[in-house]
Amino acid sequence: MKTLKTLFLITIVFSAKAQNKDSVNIRKIYDYYLTEGKAYKNLEVLCKTIGGRISGSPQAAKSVEWAKEAMYAAGADTVYLEPCMVTHWERGGKEMAVATYPGKRINLTVCALGGSTSTPVSGMNAAVVEVKSFEELKNLGEKNLVKGKVVFYNVPFNPKNISTGQSYGENVKYRYVGAVKASKYGAVATLVRSMSSVNNDSPHTGAMTYDSADVKIPSFALSYKAADDLAAALKADPKLLVQLKSTCKTFKDTASFNVIGEIRGKEKPDEYIIVGGHLDSWDNGEGAHDDGAGVVQSIDVMGMFKKAGLKPRHSIRAIAFMNEENGLGGAKAYAKETEKKKWKHIAAIETDGGGFTPRGFGVDTTAGMYKLALTWKPLLEPYFINRINKGGGGADIGPLEKFGVPCIGFEPDVQRYFDIHHTQDDTFDKVNKRELELGAAAIGSLIYLIDKYK
Amino acid sequence: MKTLKTLFLITIVFSAKAQNKDSVNIRKIYDYYLTEGKAYKNLEVLCKTIGGRISGSPQAAKSVEWAKEAMYAAGADTVYLEPCMVTHWERGGKEMAVATYPGKRINLTVCALGGSTSTPVSGMNAAVVEVKSFEELKNLGEKNLVKGKVVFYNVPFNPKNISTGQSYGENVKYRYVGAVKASKYGAVATLVRSMSSVNNDSPHTGAMTYDSADVKIPSFALSYKAADDLAAALKADPKLLVQLKSTCKTFKDTASFNVIGEIRGKEKPDEYIIVGGHLDSWDNGEGAHDDGAGVVQSIDVMGMFKKAGLKPRHSIRAIAFMNEENGLGGAKAYAKETEKKKWKHIAAIETDGGGFTPRGFGVDTTAGMYKLALTWKPLLEPYFINRINKGGGGADIGPLEKFGVPCIGFEPDVQRYFDIHHTQDDTFDKVNKRELELGAAAIGSLIYLIDKYK
Repeated sequence: MKTLKTLFLITIVFSAKAQNKDSVNIRKIYDYYLTEGKAYKNLEVLCKTIGGRISGSPQAAKSVEWAKEAMYAAGADTVYLEPCMVTHWERGGKEMAVATYPGKRINLTVCALGGSTSTPVSGMNAAVVEVKSFEELKNLGEKNLVKGKVVFYNVPFNPKNISTGQSYGENVKYRYVGAVKASKYGAVATLVRSMSSVNNDSPHTGAMTYDSADVKIPSFALSYKAADDLAAALKADPKLLVQLKSTCKTFKDTASFNVIGEIRGKEKPDEYIIVGGHLDSWDNGEGAHDDGAGVVQSIDVMGMFKKAGLKPRHSIRAIAFMNEENGLGGAKAYAKETEKKKWKHIAAIETDGGGFTPRGFGVDTTAGMYKLALTWKPLLEPYFINRINKGGGGADIGPLEKFGVPCIGFEPDVQRYFDIHHTQDDTFDKVNKRELELGAAAIGSLIYLIDKYK
Repeated sequence: MKTLKTLFLITIVFSAKAQNKDSVNIRKIYDYYLTEGKAYKNLEVLCKTIGGRISGSPQAAKSVEWAKEAMYAAGADTVYLEPCMVTHWERGGKEMAVATYPGKRINLTVCALGGSTSTPVSGMNAAVVEVKSFEELKNLGEKNLVKGKVVFYNVPFNPKNISTGQSYGENVKYRYVGAVKASKYGAVATLVRSMSSVNNDSPHTGAMTYDSADVKIPSFALSYKAADDLAAALKADPKLLVQLKSTCKTFKDTASFNVIGEIRGKEKPDEYIIVGGHLDSWDNGEGAHDDGAGVVQSIDVMGMFKKAGLKPRHSIRAIAFMNEENGLGGAKAYAKETEKKKWKHIAAIETDGGGFTPRGFGVDTTAGMYKLALTWKPLLEPYFINRINKGGGGADIGPLEKFGVPCIGFEPDVQRYFDIHHTQDDTFDKVNKRELELGAAAIGSLIYLIDKYK
């Protein structure tokens, strides 16, 4: 008869053995990524032969073809293109902003926000009202001090947050709904200080929205330096005027695709673990950290299973989502097809925080995933990826939450992310090979564990 | 009468209160570094107005003056210069290395290793023997196949280690004692593949040694690319010759200084907590990550105590050590003075891993420091610096170990460190402001805790 103590010992021996086998397999996974991983080379091709690839652009279409080939090359059993409709917005020519007051003329480096309407062809010229919050806007607006003016949202990135993502989260509303709020008080345009952790002259674009088809005012991001310059100029002469010019335009939604690579599972082929990043990027840089990195990390999961000699129990899908930046057309299409085809997802992982050194994962509590992930901490600790936070996911997998899919966000170290995010500086040379590969290996290891224990 | 339970509750309430006060103070410390910290600006001045500052050079002398001023500016009560004798080696003109065989001539980017003797003025020309280990060298040497030849240590950085520091530790012997080992078999020079995690054309210099005054052979580092090129050329023609030329020279030891800034403690002014980096650097870059970063982080500890309104119990010393790279003259002088003056050190902290995002600390077990540090993990966790490893220290504080001083090494994320370490690429622009400041704040927080609880 087995005593309780014996049973307890058996359990310990069993789980020690299991942990040991896992630790051997995770070491194999890391060996693959650090010696044979294709993520860095793939990222170079994506950034340097295609470059920026905003939804609806010829570059985005090229990137779909590239991703399909890259997934096959990585070892996908099948690759398919999932149709979706995406936003089609074009920047047009280079934007212009100049502050003028008697005897002075200050060039301000700006870029149109994604989705913005253009100025009149001849440009516009108006006084500026600087605000530090929506509350201040409201106060001024109610006194009729905003009408006919350009609203300048001058809210600096909070340097005190340890997570730069938190600072971004606090300020992004000025970019996203700043035009909606300002136009209610009769503003004619908005200028938004870039969501940036570094003082330089690169403006950060990003999505913005309108809430009515009638009232659309042109909206621009100012570089950190331009925001400082404009604030200083307003101190010198509060009545200064800014000339603004842009030629951006929104076209009709365009047909595009998510690219889905799949390895069939050996035990439960109809249950899926998915991992994805987004293939589209802003037009001004090369979409290297945002989110070429996430795409090539996802693609390399196919290679990892083949090369490390691991056969997954569930089917694994790597997804290059389209249109994350300005519409989520791809995310919506995938969620819709999930509903239609009743796909069962064991877990959904998103990697959209840049190709930086990994720290861990944000894991949601659905279906016990968070608790399960906590048990893996000892296995992850030797790789410095044992930070498991509650809550996770991302924009592309978010629509799957309503189907009860456990969602997980890969969490790299994001201290440098908002130096370059959505700017001309988001280029391949900013990505460190080892940091990208370690991130890929972290994701690969997590998928291995989910596949084994779910 | 207090029951055990009551006592237990009192203890909990007390320690919760203490932790809460600590957490408020650590937040204040971070606020200082992230909004008013001087580390980044100081580093810019050091790198851009002085630049590379090898021991014994005019730049090193200038950096001593600069450090003294910077420590006063940061709020030191006193600053003094501690004399030391340092190595004085000069690179001279640019080195040359060319591989030649019939019809081919391949330029190899090299740099002399620190401490190397020069080639004859007219250069040298010899065949090459490539080895992958000291064992292989021994086998070839004993067969008389090394005599009169250039030994090429072609041992790549191991990419599988998660810590790049471990890969460096595994290979650095080929640089440091490669000439000693090769000259025993009659080699005339050594070429060492750079200790590098990245494939580019920047050679990594670093210290090497001789064990006899009679037999000194010139020693060079090959860039990663040059090592690949030479290995390929040797495959094409094992009899190829390399021409080598260098004009480096070791002069007599020179007088220099450690720079020591001090804040007097209010309770135990004769007990010290020290924190230091090294002021000297290699001559080829700007000594930004190695170790300008550590110096400016140490200096900023003075500012932190003043600006965060904290008065230390013990005296705090920030030390800019001289001659860490090629002689440890400064470290030896500080240890000698410690012995002579019977200085009591509560803890010694070294920051010499670059200005990257902090991860935690390596803490040695002397005087219960490791165990104590483990109790601080909950306080460090919100700042992602709660990785406390056993063992610590560094080259400059190492000589204090014999006096029973608990030694602690600051541990940033070093994935990018060996891309640029000891090369022309170790420049100010490679340092990210937030990463540098977060490292400084991590160190400042640790000093606050040691000061309070020791």
